[in-house]
Amino acid sequence: MQIQPGPHLAQINTPEDLKKFPKEELVLICDELRQFIVDNVSVYGGHFGASLGVVELTVALHYVLNTPEDQLVWDVGHQAYGHKILTGRRDQFHTNRIYGGLSGFPKRKESPYDTFGVGHSSTSISAALGMAVASKYKNSPIQHVAVIGDGSMTGGMAFEAMNHAGVSDTNLLIILNDNCMSIDPNVGALKDYLTDITTSHTYNKVKDEVWKMLGKLSKFGSSAQEVISKVEGAIKSAVLKQSNLFESLNLRYFGPVDGHDVNHLVEILKDLKDIPGPKILHCVTVKGKGYAPAENGNKTTWHAPGTFDKVTGEIFKKVPSAPQAPKYQDVFGHTMVELAEMDSRIMGVTPAMPSGSSLNIMMKAMPDRAFDVGIAEQHAVTFSAGLATQGLIPFCNIYSSFMQRAYDQVIHDVCLQNLPVVFCLDRAGFAGADGPTHHGAYDLAYFRCIPNLVVAAPMNEEELRNLMYTAVQYQGPFSIRYPRGNGVMPEWRTPFCEIPVGQGRIVKEGEDVAVLTIGHIGNYVVDACKTLAKEGLNSAHYDMRFVKPLDEELLHEIFGKFKKVVTVEDGCLMGGFGSAVLEWMMDHGYQAQVKRLGIPDAVIEHGEQIELQRECGFDPEGIAAAVRALAEVVQA
Amino acid sequence: MQIQPGPHLAQINTPEDLKKFPKEELVLICDELRQFIVDNVSVYGGHFGASLGVVELTVALHYVLNTPEDQLVWDVGHQAYGHKILTGRRDQFHTNRIYGGLSGFPKRKESPYDTFGVGHSSTSISAALGMAVASKYKNSPIQHVAVIGDGSMTGGMAFEAMNHAGVSDTNLLIILNDNCMSIDPNVGALKDYLTDITTSHTYNKVKDEVWKMLGKLSKFGSSAQEVISKVEGAIKSAVLKQSNLFESLNLRYFGPVDGHDVNHLVEILKDLKDIPGPKILHCVTVKGKGYAPAENGNKTTWHAPGTFDKVTGEIFKKVPSAPQAPKYQDVFGHTMVELAEMDSRIMGVTPAMPSGSSLNIMMKAMPDRAFDVGIAEQHAVTFSAGLATQGLIPFCNIYSSFMQRAYDQVIHDVCLQNLPVVFCLDRAGFAGADGPTHHGAYDLAYFRCIPNLVVAAPMNEEELRNLMYTAVQYQGPFSIRYPRGNGVMPEWRTPFCEIPVGQGRIVKEGEDVAVLTIGHIGNYVVDACKTLAKEGLNSAHYDMRFVKPLDEELLHEIFGKFKKVVTVEDGCLMGGFGSAVLEWMMDHGYQAQVKRLGIPDAVIEHGEQIELQRECGFDPEGIAAAVRALAEVVQA
Repeated sequence: MQIQPGPHLAQINTPEDLKKFPKEELVLICDELRQFIVDNVSVYGGHFGASLGVVELTVALHYVLNTPEDQLVWDVGHQAYGHKILTGRRDQFHTNRIYGGLSGFPKRKESPYDTFGVGHSSTSISAALGMAVASKYKNSPIQHVAVIGDGSMTGGMAFEAMNHAGVSDTNLLIILNDNCMSIDPNVGALKDYLTDITTSHTYNKVKDEVWKMLGKLSKFGSSAQEVISKVEGAIKSAVLKQSNLFESLNLRYFGPVDGHDVNHLVEILKDLKDIPGPKILHCVTVKGKGYAPAENGNKTTWHAPGTFDKVTGEIFKKVPSAPQAPKYQDVFGHTMVELAEMDSRIMGVTPAMPSGSSLNIMMKAMPDRAFDVGIAEQHAVTFSAGLATQGLIPFCNIYSSFMQRAYDQVIHDVCLQNLPVVFCLDRAGFAGADGPTHHGAYDLAYFRCIPNLVVAAPMNEEELRNLMYTAVQYQGPFSIRYPRGNGVMPEWRTPFCEIPVGQGRIVKEGEDVAVLTIGHIGNYVVDACKTLAKEGLNSAHYDMRFVKPLDEELLHEIFGKFKKVVTVEDGCLMGGFGSAVLEWMMDHGYQAQVKRLGIPDAVIEHGEQIELQRECGFDPEGIAAAVRALAEVVQA
Repeated sequence: MQIQPGPHLAQINTPEDLKKFPKEELVLICDELRQFIVDNVSVYGGHFGASLGVVELTVALHYVLNTPEDQLVWDVGHQAYGHKILTGRRDQFHTNRIYGGLSGFPKRKESPYDTFGVGHSSTSISAALGMAVASKYKNSPIQHVAVIGDGSMTGGMAFEAMNHAGVSDTNLLIILNDNCMSIDPNVGALKDYLTDITTSHTYNKVKDEVWKMLGKLSKFGSSAQEVISKVEGAIKSAVLKQSNLFESLNLRYFGPVDGHDVNHLVEILKDLKDIPGPKILHCVTVKGKGYAPAENGNKTTWHAPGTFDKVTGEIFKKVPSAPQAPKYQDVFGHTMVELAEMDSRIMGVTPAMPSGSSLNIMMKAMPDRAFDVGIAEQHAVTFSAGLATQGLIPFCNIYSSFMQRAYDQVIHDVCLQNLPVVFCLDRAGFAGADGPTHHGAYDLAYFRCIPNLVVAAPMNEEELRNLMYTAVQYQGPFSIRYPRGNGVMPEWRTPFCEIPVGQGRIVKEGEDVAVLTIGHIGNYVVDACKTLAKEGLNSAHYDMRFVKPLDEELLHEIFGKFKKVVTVEDGCLMGGFGSAVLEWMMDHGYQAQVKRLGIPDAVIEHGEQIELQRECGFDPEGIAAAVRALAEVVQA
């Protein structure tokens, strides 16, 4: 159901419409835009705090820039709701993040105003610089703006891009949206530095004060004047040229400015259009600005609160009628503490996902043994490798799709050296509403080809705990992947039990077809087998637990008995678990019909996990249908 | 054959032996160490300029530190020859980079003094920080030193690590080995900044001058004094606290110092041992220092010159008796210029490998259309994506193993958006003497699972040119992989011809066994087929050209005719080309015996390419043997 916009906003279908309003009305428009976001997200859910924080910036940018000719790139994109609403998608906005609806992130396919698809952090400067270099090459005078948060600025590729931008002589404006937050509070030296600039000891105040006082000194006569002019020259060179991190990289630095003063922002952005070369505008904003519960409350909670009562600010919680199975991430978080209490070698590492991974449980319980290293997946992995060289056993928790950022470090720094780092890949399989940038579709394929790396996935909470326990004993590179969302065991605090590495298990004996699964998706097969049993089809089910090493004994048993095999994985079919089974079968001289179910070689959009699994044919009904079809095939 | 060391060096088997010498003799020891490196590399080849540049630093570090307890991490490791020679490997040093001999890089398996295996850039700070955090946790007082070049400092993960280090309160010393070079001259804003610090307008001189002049001002009486003290306070805060890029990140900055004054380095390193917290020492060095032809000549040439006459500095070139096939990289480089002359949309991008990729040919011919973006693979890919959004067609050339660094960017920024970026992966397959960190073993597997990406490999120079030409017409993500070294066509400047995407070709008709190959390794199969033909075994040979999309028409033909198939690839067997063929076969209901040849699931060490291929059973003899064995199997 469409939410009613305010009277000004109702007239804005494109930034052209926005430009028709006099500057004096921009504050009103900001209010209406903010309210529209509150009205929508409170009912439909989605990302919240980030978009409220950039309402003024969004309005000012579209008021000043000539979008979509001018190229505006939003880093990550959590903050781009206002942008979407102002650029022709107001009336579809209630479909945000819903299957078939708008994407929760900027997306090129969706709108010409979305110049670059985002989702992962720290890409905006590189992308906008590419656009700016292209414009320079084509002698085009258009503007290029990257809006990047202080959290994203800690990602190494942002630095790589600034190093290039600083010598590029292009028309590039970087807007640093400094709110001291990523999803969790931002950490690290850069954050301290930015805070330092924006608080009382600011760089600018220092600069201004020095100028002022040097002015006073000038009254001490000409001989002093001469010295002063030298001091001034020296300070200019030191303070102006080198005194700022960004100016060190040859980016002209402006700010810090109040990111909530829309009229001032309009003036500044107009001025900056006329200043050539790469430059950075430091805007200070507040996540959740203008909605008191978010502005004053826990900013991590209000990053993506789900639905809430917009009047009281009460976040709606579903009250389960029966004890519910926990989230896998919480099983990870609590189990970390249990394991670490038993073994002093265990450490925890997360790149800026303490709450998303639930490592925050350990960070609170054992602050000297669990580390948030910032949005820095590459560093997180090699830092873990460094810990491992000293006899420690780090658990490095990175979402499956973010692990793509640290692929080389997993190979080069951990696996080639056979170091005991345990990788826990949360959000493996379909991420759901976050869509293709966040689907953990590829990890089984891209991890399986790395020597020395164990690749495992638990079918339930107990298995996750046991795999984590097993990884500690294993003393080599070990990966464990599990999905977003809940498991299946309300009573999940089971005693630890070591699983022999590479040992699968039989879930259900059967006759006609063997179904081999990896991970949580195996629970769908349990359901599918029940359905099929009612039809008289008695299929076997094996939970392989390990993609590498495969359980060869079990495979000999399976392929010795079955000529029809189905593999199921919540991951890409190309090179994944099913592919591993095929390789093994062929290498060992078996011949069977193998039907592989999983994510096809295509970009799967956003939606609920079950909707996407159904689309790809591996929801419980799809699995049952595939087993049924295979069973019915007459053997060749 | 072992090279004779100088009289001092002959007595040094470990850093303990080095410490027995009085400080006065360190200069002599540096001379002998430098000479030993010259003597060895001139005869046996290897990396050269980098190690000469850190002779004094290496001697000073091992003189002052208590290695191997103290943890010394060399970034990349090209510069670690002196380190190896001083730490027990002097008498094996002539086996450097030879099959079965010493690794060309630090390697944990090789020596306890090699605290962290390296090869790829920018990992040292992360690794050393991990070690330092572990020591802090264990209350161990040991030292942790990362030695990193100014080139490696442009890699984003170095920045990620510094962001963490700055708030870590650990005993970490970063030594910035600033020689203005990576393999090629270093580029970017950071390099300009460092040069700025070390040249006449230096930060330090500015700082000193300001202090001095403020001193002079003090003679103007007490009212001036008051102002001055305020100015001083302000400047202290501005200049000392914030005036330096590294201090911005809360790393105490020392330097710049002369990296060739061994006695001064010893004093400084001793002093720094007593200064707690994370800190950085900026050392200015000269690549090739102390060997005139390298110090004064082309530093890129002298990075790894091959063998040379150490007296004259003449680099030995093999003079071929007949016209030789070119290197693949040069075919790429020249073809880029040809294509770009035909099509104004084509651009070239390399992350710090202009000479290694031969993109320098285009950079020279068309400086506004070819970019070296620094050691920054992630940025290189997303920058290319940005160019592509503006209607340009970037060719982004990255070595296969370095592409691992930009895996997420390939997925997230190029392929999910279906942008026309052409990836050219040089050094695909075994890299040879550089060893496991540099083997391009995994790309077929890790690229094959990405939607929208074409995965191709040419069997020869003509095919490389035609694939590049085809990629321009294709207008989507396109990857082309080819090996280090020479092709097979002395007359390689063939006219361009578009290849239908996904179309393989038959190289040789046959009867018994079909051999399917991808890329240059197909030439081995040509040889193998000749051998087999002499034995009366008439095998067919298909060059598939594309791993994705596969040539389905051709595959139907092959599997319709043959029940015995061999696949050959210079890449990992897990999830690679052979695996793709298996998947297709199973999905299409064929049953055949398929033997897959390629790199097994293990870490393959260094050696000549052919030695490693032989080890893995896919040199020409190994291929012939596999085909023979399969042909002899009685059909099940």
